[in-house]
Amino acid sequence: MRRVGFGLAGTGRMGRVHAGNLAGRCAVAELACVYDADGERAAAVAAEHGVPVATTFAELVERSEAVAVATPTGSHAELTVTAAQAGRPVFCEKPLSLDRATTVATIEAVEAAGVPLQVGFHRRFDPDWAAAAARIAAGELGEVTYFRTSLRDMTPPDPNFLAGSGGFFVDVTVHDLDVARWLVGAVAGDITEVTAHGAASDPAFAALGDIDTAVCVLRFANGALGVIDNSRSARYGYECSTEVVGTLATVRVEAPRPVEWRTPGQAAYPLARDFEERYPTAYTAELDAFARCVRDGTPPLITGRDALAAFDLASAATESWRTGMTVTVKENT
Amino acid sequence: MRRVGFGLAGTGRMGRVHAGNLAGRCAVAELACVYDADGERAAAVAAEHGVPVATTFAELVERSEAVAVATPTGSHAELTVTAAQAGRPVFCEKPLSLDRATTVATIEAVEAAGVPLQVGFHRRFDPDWAAAAARIAAGELGEVTYFRTSLRDMTPPDPNFLAGSGGFFVDVTVHDLDVARWLVGAVAGDITEVTAHGAASDPAFAALGDIDTAVCVLRFANGALGVIDNSRSARYGYECSTEVVGTLATVRVEAPRPVEWRTPGQAAYPLARDFEERYPTAYTAELDAFARCVRDGTPPLITGRDALAAFDLASAATESWRTGMTVTVKENT
Amino acid sequence: MRRVGFGLAGTGRMGRVHAGNLAGRCAVAELACVYDADGERAAAVAAEHGVPVATTFAELVERSEAVAVATPTGSHAELTVTAAQAGRPVFCEKPLSLDRATTVATIEAVEAAGVPLQVGFHRRFDPDWAAAAARIAAGELGEVTYFRTSLRDMTPPDPNFLAGSGGFFVDVTVHDLDVARWLVGAVAGDITEVTAHGAASDPAFAALGDIDTAVCVLRFANGALGVIDNSRSARYGYECSTEVVGTLATVRVEAPRPVEWRTPGQAAYPLARDFEERYPTAYTAELDAFARCVRDGTPPLITGRDALAAFDLASAATESWRTGMTVTVKENT
Amino acid sequence: MRRVGFGLAGTGRMGRVHAGNLAGRCAVAELACVYDADGERAAAVAAEHGVPVATTFAELVERSEAVAVATPTGSHAELTVTAAQAGRPVFCEKPLSLDRATTVATIEAVEAAGVPLQVGFHRRFDPDWAAAAARIAAGELGEVTYFRTSLRDMTPPDPNFLAGSGGFFVDVTVHDLDVARWLVGAVAGDITEVTAHGAASDPAFAALGDIDTAVCVLRFANGALGVIDNSRSARYGYECSTEVVGTLATVRVEAPRPVEWRTPGQAAYPLARDFEERYPTAYTAELDAFARCVRDGTPPLITGRDALAAFDLASAATESWRTGMTVTVKENT
Repeated sequence: MRRVGFGLAGTGRMGRVHAGNLAGRCAVAELACVYDADGERAAAVAAEHGVPVATTFAELVERSEAVAVATPTGSHAELTVTAAQAGRPVFCEKPLSLDRATTVATIEAVEAAGVPLQVGFHRRFDPDWAAAAARIAAGELGEVTYFRTSLRDMTPPDPNFLAGSGGFFVDVTVHDLDVARWLVGAVAGDITEVTAHGAASDPAFAALGDIDTAVCVLRFANGALGVIDNSRSARYGYECSTEVVGTLATVRVEAPRPVEWRTPGQAAYPLARDFEERYPTAYTAELDAFARCVRDGTPPLITGRDALAAFDLASAATESWRTGMTVTVKENT
Repeated sequence: MRRVGFGLAGTGRMGRVHAGNLAGRCAVAELACVYDADGERAAAVAAEHGVPVATTFAELVERSEAVAVATPTGSHAELTVTAAQAGRPVFCEKPLSLDRATTVATIEAVEAAGVPLQVGFHRRFDPDWAAAAARIAAGELGEVTYFRTSLRDMTPPDPNFLAGSGGFFVDVTVHDLDVARWLVGAVAGDITEVTAHGAASDPAFAALGDIDTAVCVLRFANGALGVIDNSRSARYGYECSTEVVGTLATVRVEAPRPVEWRTPGQAAYPLARDFEERYPTAYTAELDAFARCVRDGTPPLITGRDALAAFDLASAATESWRTGMTVTVKENT
Repeated sequence: MRRVGFGLAGTGRMGRVHAGNLAGRCAVAELACVYDADGERAAAVAAEHGVPVATTFAELVERSEAVAVATPTGSHAELTVTAAQAGRPVFCEKPLSLDRATTVATIEAVEAAGVPLQVGFHRRFDPDWAAAAARIAAGELGEVTYFRTSLRDMTPPDPNFLAGSGGFFVDVTVHDLDVARWLVGAVAGDITEVTAHGAASDPAFAALGDIDTAVCVLRFANGALGVIDNSRSARYGYECSTEVVGTLATVRVEAPRPVEWRTPGQAAYPLARDFEERYPTAYTAELDAFARCVRDGTPPLITGRDALAAFDLASAATESWRTGMTVTVKENT
Repeated sequence: MRRVGFGLAGTGRMGRVHAGNLAGRCAVAELACVYDADGERAAAVAAEHGVPVATTFAELVERSEAVAVATPTGSHAELTVTAAQAGRPVFCEKPLSLDRATTVATIEAVEAAGVPLQVGFHRRFDPDWAAAAARIAAGELGEVTYFRTSLRDMTPPDPNFLAGSGGFFVDVTVHDLDVARWLVGAVAGDITEVTAHGAASDPAFAALGDIDTAVCVLRFANGALGVIDNSRSARYGYECSTEVVGTLATVRVEAPRPVEWRTPGQAAYPLARDFEERYPTAYTAELDAFARCVRDGTPPLITGRDALAAFDLASAATESWRTGMTVTVKENT
């Protein structure tokens, strides 16, 4: 079970998310080294996770088995090609570039280098979406007749960010377009038509000639229609949900509700079958919590005394069951 | 961010859960060594995770900074004391012992050794339960007036297991009793009375003089009532839920539904505010998936070509928005 | 489809609920006459619904085909017997009496009179509960192994009411006890044991020697356990919910959520199949709304002009679909 | 509280729905007379509800205070005008006509006659939709930025029906267009643009040159976008749901779930506050059930004996609470 050491380029918001995951939560990937054009920030992230900092991207590549690129969009293509040509597999945040020719050239350079490249469309790795995709691909929906997805941010980004974002559809809608291809394309075929509408509910966006709300109608090769709606400021929260309607069943992914499957006359969602399904993180967390006690000298949350108190209560329950009488308990004996 | 190396004793079901977490998902704890009285099973688990196997418990203790005990109940107390007396912090699955005197002696021996001991009541580390506990302790419920919890297995355990389980209340109800102390005791005080009722819906349990369903009524120091119901065979799934009613608010933990807070005239549940809250595991999973590609030579799930196709669709959407016309797309260009 | 004319005795809160239903919403029953010891209040209710007022109970009986008794508890038995002996079928709010001997005497007098008597346990007539009861009786749950129900008021009643209420269990728990017999007794047999616990979270109840929270554990003839919890002040709202666990399925009635059926690994709830199921009251309400316009001379909510505007928009949609172009609309043409 | 007597023209599916409501569930409207071109069917419906049958529409008008038109679409306009010119207020199912000129002429004739006309857009009278509309109109959403609604039938209509339906958008989408004007138009202004897309997932519809699925994108005067999706065969059930996103809050109407209000970081739904809110139909149903017993001689569902049994159990609970002991009960004493 060898782990793969990643060199991480970029320590902005997404970079720091990746740093924390590589250093603490990944099972196969691990953090090997950190680089950022802002050397101080790189050093701080490296120190936080106890890994070396690289002073140049070339040094990062040198010290890593694979490279994760989470820098500003403008350098994605160049760093990806550099790493690939040095023989390093590359994970790159989307988009590769805001320019089609550069995107194609990057892909071709990576292909020529013969290393794998993965782009950061994270939604394909969420358990709910992945489960839905697998069941759709397996034919459980029959033929897809309608598709709907919403991706909405809670609050708009900094206007400075917008200038280099590539525009609303390239920055936001692209996630749903990838999902449409992956989730629905498997059974409904390629997307053949796109019709888009935009609006700026916030005058700040209108002033920039930009939009903050969009609707995109899709047509798939099998004739089915799809609708994407996107917003930069839904206000109530971050929305990322979908519905796929098929001739045999309909599925809805609408966290925090469980994934729902609809068949004639009924909506159903799966139930946990055992403690591992019900508690996917509690067993990891209890060991990490205790490891922190060991490392930092803090007291555990549940001691032997707690176990004794619970045992005494369980014994009282046993006695009550046997005698049919209420048992009075005195804790902390 | 030093990790703490755990020696794991026991490779039954819970032991293997811990092995997988220590080896792959923990951020602070890590797997250092494995031991089991069944040496072959220990070797297999050790090999799976690339760590050494210990042939004796003493060797495990020697090679570890802390020890996790997940052996059959009968050896919990002895192994805990042995490890503690060797200066190792101990994480032990519940119960420490089925015998009160042994439980007390174990606790006292660990205290004399001056090392921390944590017992495996995992529910305290689930995000939903922990959030509820924190808000209750902070007074958000006001005074607690009623408490209810259900712990139900989907299917009954092997009858062979039952003989050494300590009985229904010590084996099953003890989890809810610990939760009652932790979740409610903080504001309602100690549990002062216990009244228990049992039933055997399955004749196999009745034949053993045992029960498979129980109700346990609690009284807290503040006078509030609590009800625990437990079952070894709920059939529909694994249930682990609670409701705590207070003078200011009521909370329900009923996965897979989100935690619900009730105040006069309204029930509410929290919404994700950004992609990190909404996708707590997708960003870890995408890096692990790519690490597996790197390690094993398999192709990535999302390539540059996928990114290009999504980019082309986003460009078509931009064009449609600008022109007000439907744009025909040809994929795979 | 002859309607049955009811004489209503009692115009307190429940009496006025019945008056409104008999006068406006019942399909087979109708309001024939109203009586109350408080003649002014009776006259007001009678006038509101356009029916005669009776100055004595004897007159009410005389002018009615059946009698509904919604007076204070103390007069239930006497009025019921009087009406029955005059040959009138009687609907009586619960309880018949707070005294067992009087209850039995009342039942025997009604039986001797040969008229039907129905007591007001309304929950048996709620669609959710009735559907669950029918499916349980039909065997869809298999054998019942556990039953749980909650009845909780939002805010406590006036202390003056409590004095004549018969006590917590007779006033509140009796509803759940009836439901337990009806919903579960059909397959689990009679209730053979009762164990009750009470608490007064509000000092005002303790001062009266009364309780405001109770837990009642039941044992059914088949050995299954049941738990009732009741409260006079749940604060967040009025709770009336249940769960029945069986060997084949489990049902939960927890409005405002739809009734949920759980089978191994899955929870499901029914979906509406057509507009009548989806809109059980809208078609009635639209006709009543228009009847009010006719009667009172107020304008309708939806006029022909609204219909024309929607028609024009639908025509624009048709044109857009045919041409593939966006159609600009000018309302109010 | 005078009732308004309606003459009902048309006894097809919608006509029979109206007949049942007018005869049994309306509080202000009542059924006065029935007419249908198919005299036998009219006679059967009239007999079922105990009202006279009219042999001509003129006779129906003569015997009614108001007229409800639920005949096939082709005769809506003519009957509406005839009734209006006879001075009768008219409730007419949608559409008034499939022809714009006839629609306008009908409206003008009714206006000239000076009687009120209401068209059958029932959704405005559903409690969930009406509550959402009222709160939106009151400004609780702030400015509307996005609107989405779905209307989907479970199974397609008979092809014979389609020929005279006016086409998909006039027959189906028109409901959502009315709702868009009512629900959203109040704050977002008139609909200024419509873009529609259609698909035929079922070859039978394609063969007729018709569609069975459609998406309609709206633009409101304030710039906000809206999306309607419609289907003639969603298969899983009848869907009629909406979401309106505003700058202050977002509302979702998605029965059978309760209406949900979203504000920053939270989703909430209202809870019942008392038994009347929780049981809107049970109190009516219990009286109608008893009225049927009286009328038809069948036994009541809940007798005095049931009340006695529940009383005995409540008394046992009281005794158990007082003594702290389990009480054994013997039913049917």
